[in-house]
Amino acid sequence: MKTIGILTKPKFPDVKPILKDLVSWLREHEKNVVLDSKTAALIGESVTYQKPQMAALADMLVVLGGDGTILNAARLVEERGIPILGVNMGGLGFLTEVGVDQLYPTLLNVFGGAYHLEERLMLRARIDRHGEHVAQATVLNDVVISKGTLARMIEIQISIEGQFVTRLRGDGLIISTPTGSTAYSLSAGGPIINPSVQALIITPICPHTLTHRPLVIPSNVGLEVVLTGKDEGAMTTFDGQVGVAMVQGDSVTMSASDHRTRLIRFPDHTYFDVLRKKLKWGDG
Amino acid sequence: MKTIGILTKPKFPDVKPILKDLVSWLREHEKNVVLDSKTAALIGESVTYQKPQMAALADMLVVLGGDGTILNAARLVEERGIPILGVNMGGLGFLTEVGVDQLYPTLLNVFGGAYHLEERLMLRARIDRHGEHVAQATVLNDVVISKGTLARMIEIQISIEGQFVTRLRGDGLIISTPTGSTAYSLSAGGPIINPSVQALIITPICPHTLTHRPLVIPSNVGLEVVLTGKDEGAMTTFDGQVGVAMVQGDSVTMSASDHRTRLIRFPDHTYFDVLRKKLKWGDG
Amino acid sequence: MKTIGILTKPKFPDVKPILKDLVSWLREHEKNVVLDSKTAALIGESVTYQKPQMAALADMLVVLGGDGTILNAARLVEERGIPILGVNMGGLGFLTEVGVDQLYPTLLNVFGGAYHLEERLMLRARIDRHGEHVAQATVLNDVVISKGTLARMIEIQISIEGQFVTRLRGDGLIISTPTGSTAYSLSAGGPIINPSVQALIITPICPHTLTHRPLVIPSNVGLEVVLTGKDEGAMTTFDGQVGVAMVQGDSVTMSASDHRTRLIRFPDHTYFDVLRKKLKWGDG
Amino acid sequence: MKTIGILTKPKFPDVKPILKDLVSWLREHEKNVVLDSKTAALIGESVTYQKPQMAALADMLVVLGGDGTILNAARLVEERGIPILGVNMGGLGFLTEVGVDQLYPTLLNVFGGAYHLEERLMLRARIDRHGEHVAQATVLNDVVISKGTLARMIEIQISIEGQFVTRLRGDGLIISTPTGSTAYSLSAGGPIINPSVQALIITPICPHTLTHRPLVIPSNVGLEVVLTGKDEGAMTTFDGQVGVAMVQGDSVTMSASDHRTRLIRFPDHTYFDVLRKKLKWGDG
Repeated sequence: MKTIGILTKPKFPDVKPILKDLVSWLREHEKNVVLDSKTAALIGESVTYQKPQMAALADMLVVLGGDGTILNAARLVEERGIPILGVNMGGLGFLTEVGVDQLYPTLLNVFGGAYHLEERLMLRARIDRHGEHVAQATVLNDVVISKGTLARMIEIQISIEGQFVTRLRGDGLIISTPTGSTAYSLSAGGPIINPSVQALIITPICPHTLTHRPLVIPSNVGLEVVLTGKDEGAMTTFDGQVGVAMVQGDSVTMSASDHRTRLIRFPDHTYFDVLRKKLKWGDG
Repeated sequence: MKTIGILTKPKFPDVKPILKDLVSWLREHEKNVVLDSKTAALIGESVTYQKPQMAALADMLVVLGGDGTILNAARLVEERGIPILGVNMGGLGFLTEVGVDQLYPTLLNVFGGAYHLEERLMLRARIDRHGEHVAQATVLNDVVISKGTLARMIEIQISIEGQFVTRLRGDGLIISTPTGSTAYSLSAGGPIINPSVQALIITPICPHTLTHRPLVIPSNVGLEVVLTGKDEGAMTTFDGQVGVAMVQGDSVTMSASDHRTRLIRFPDHTYFDVLRKKLKWGDG
Repeated sequence: MKTIGILTKPKFPDVKPILKDLVSWLREHEKNVVLDSKTAALIGESVTYQKPQMAALADMLVVLGGDGTILNAARLVEERGIPILGVNMGGLGFLTEVGVDQLYPTLLNVFGGAYHLEERLMLRARIDRHGEHVAQATVLNDVVISKGTLARMIEIQISIEGQFVTRLRGDGLIISTPTGSTAYSLSAGGPIINPSVQALIITPICPHTLTHRPLVIPSNVGLEVVLTGKDEGAMTTFDGQVGVAMVQGDSVTMSASDHRTRLIRFPDHTYFDVLRKKLKWGDG
Repeated sequence: MKTIGILTKPKFPDVKPILKDLVSWLREHEKNVVLDSKTAALIGESVTYQKPQMAALADMLVVLGGDGTILNAARLVEERGIPILGVNMGGLGFLTEVGVDQLYPTLLNVFGGAYHLEERLMLRARIDRHGEHVAQATVLNDVVISKGTLARMIEIQISIEGQFVTRLRGDGLIISTPTGSTAYSLSAGGPIINPSVQALIITPICPHTLTHRPLVIPSNVGLEVVLTGKDEGAMTTFDGQVGVAMVQGDSVTMSASDHRTRLIRFPDHTYFDVLRKKLKWGDG
């Protein structure tokens, strides 16, 4: 690991001094540091790289931020699969691994090889309209197909491996990875899925019929959702960060990505600890 | 009941001949018929009334349509409380009472006094912005405060009788009457409330915390919801038919209306029959 | 309020010295104290009264315990409607009003008339078998009809005011008052109902069909549940404290009691505070 | 496939003539038929085999019954993994494949090799008490740990791979395979899991805290549930058919079985068809 990319969420307070320190420390430890132009500007340096170029050069990514910043990082490095270290700038996260106070000891461990990589399934989605690809994205959490704010509902049809599954009327549909199962899907009534289960979750959002329940399917199948009803502001959203306006008849095709997000992890705290603390799961 | 107003949903197929017949039949039975200008045009007559004026003149309203048309009727006649007869043009409804095939025998019963009136609670809502009223409405089903399509969540604060109740982050909030409990609130996980219970239901839509549950409160209390987070396309919707764009800090104040919707009913089929048939409640 | 009855839950730690102090303090303040024989024995006194006789003599009941002890107290005083002061010996309760540390200032307030009485609806239930009454009880929380541990399900039929409502197969059914809505009914997916709503909640327990949802009905109707399937260990339980073994064909008839539980309350903390603290409602 | 075992549910009406015909038909087609003593008696034959011996001799099992009879068959053939053909004697099933009217054409297809085998994960469970094995079983649907009928709750502790996961108070806990996800776990609020997902579902039954949600974990981990609270009639049940009374401190250890249930399937109807028809999933 010679070249270290750094991704930050500039709106986090105190990110500037931490970033400045981190860059100096890495250079002292004989690492190349790559930053995108905006991040470089934060500490008075000037580079021309945008984020995708920065990610393309790095051997590893240090992310100063929260779970949302890691979702962003995962999309940036998708095909390269380089390790990502999440450094938590806010509250406890599912994807961030250490707090700022542990940053340097952690990096020494990483450079010394004392870590393991946890692989997370990503979902690849493509939107087709009148036979043409109009958008595509790879997400770590979820793809959401939802009604416009003023529309009373969305009408969609779901197929798996070309087989008709069901029609759905309601606020929308979430197609989530196990990583995304503790995000929006959970709010909509979906189950918690351990990230090592190779599965996708189909969670209806406020369905108009009482018999729809979240459905868990193997991750190696192809999934298609067609907007059969009127569009009226309907939207497909990738990881809650990028939205594409839908047109009636649009098809969203999804399948597991060939690539995995690789998170740097240490064995001293477990998935279930985070679940209990962050979701207050079972607390009471 | 001398003057009969007729409200239709023009998009229903076959509404034209049914309307024409009905108008003739009513005139033959020595009733005055009042129509709004669009409905009159459907049968080649010309009047200048808009719907509110039509409703203001009628002693009773015959509604040719579905539950949605009745929601509209309820708002039109709010303060006057005149009887509404719902004639079902589509599938079974909670608010419509008879099918088209029973229209004339039913009207003879009504004119002969052989019916009863079922009163339904309505909810009055007012939106205030910077100390000024910017909108108000009375609904038979629900007031919905919801996030914009692209926003990740809405942040609101709920108070009852001036007491702080809770803060909520999620897709939104439904304040529903018992009548509305089988509509959107049910999709969002709310209970079914019999219309004779004097209560309102507060149902969170996809709340970000696992501990939010639908809350049923007495109908004689005042309720306030404040948009504490960013607006980002947030919307308040009345009966799913009228939307008002929200601004951060907006307050939605709600309480039971002094007026009731009065539905013409006959004793031969019950609330629970409709529940079983329409929701397939308990079917299986 | 001349004669004060005291109800305790002997298993609570430290109840003995608190009880001894309380009895002395009340006598110093010129009150008569009535105890049942077991409670009296705790502080070395000897009386012959059982709990029902104790409750029949008291003008007011001080309950040292938790919500469960208050359920017991409510059944004891049902018809007499005397005020109940709940003194919390464990964690926060919905029905207990003060902690032990506030016991004496609270009693001075009560004797000075500085309190209000909150009325709570109770549910009266009767079990009939082959035309004969085999059990009856009045509950503050709930009546539960449930399958035997080894049975796969229970089959019951629900009627309201003599009208058939639905058949249910599953683990059982909870008929709850608003007070009971934060107890077992909530665990089974029921809504939270503010105690001032005049309603009952019918909450299915693990129903075999996906379309069953909790149903809220007005408290002034009569409700009947018949065990139509095999008994196989089926049980009706009153307030989770008293159980009656069911026989196939048994009917459980329920309606609101004419009597109310009267809880001594002070205005300085609200229903919603307890909801937030005890259920962590909305916490996150 | 030379030797065909037949398993029936004697209580199904008309099983006798169907069984008689089937035995004759198989013998005409030069197959050996093995029956247990009770089934043989139904058609006037006399053998001494019990069901386990019958299953040990067969190359294939024909099951005349419903999903419950197949659960029984799966346990009988566990280690041998012989194909099972489910012939539906009642309503549509998830595990039965054909109706009686298709029995002989189906068998001809099977004997001609025109079928495929669908493998279903089974769960192996063992109960330990004071260091001794007191029971063990392999299930196709679920292991349920539940409170006694009169107890107010059960208190248990869950660990995965030796790591503490959570404590749970409530009516109980379901550990389900994907096959079992459409049975009891669904009634308790669990998701539907496609049988080809390699996972187990942990579904709380009426948990006392609002934050418990169903949890899906990989099938290759070991799971332990300890009864930490009082036993009071607590029970562990295997596939809803065999119950073991629990003692405080008992541990139930579970992991995927090395063996799979092999169901004979034909490609002309899909999992999702059955889901829609049997659960009315998405119907409305």
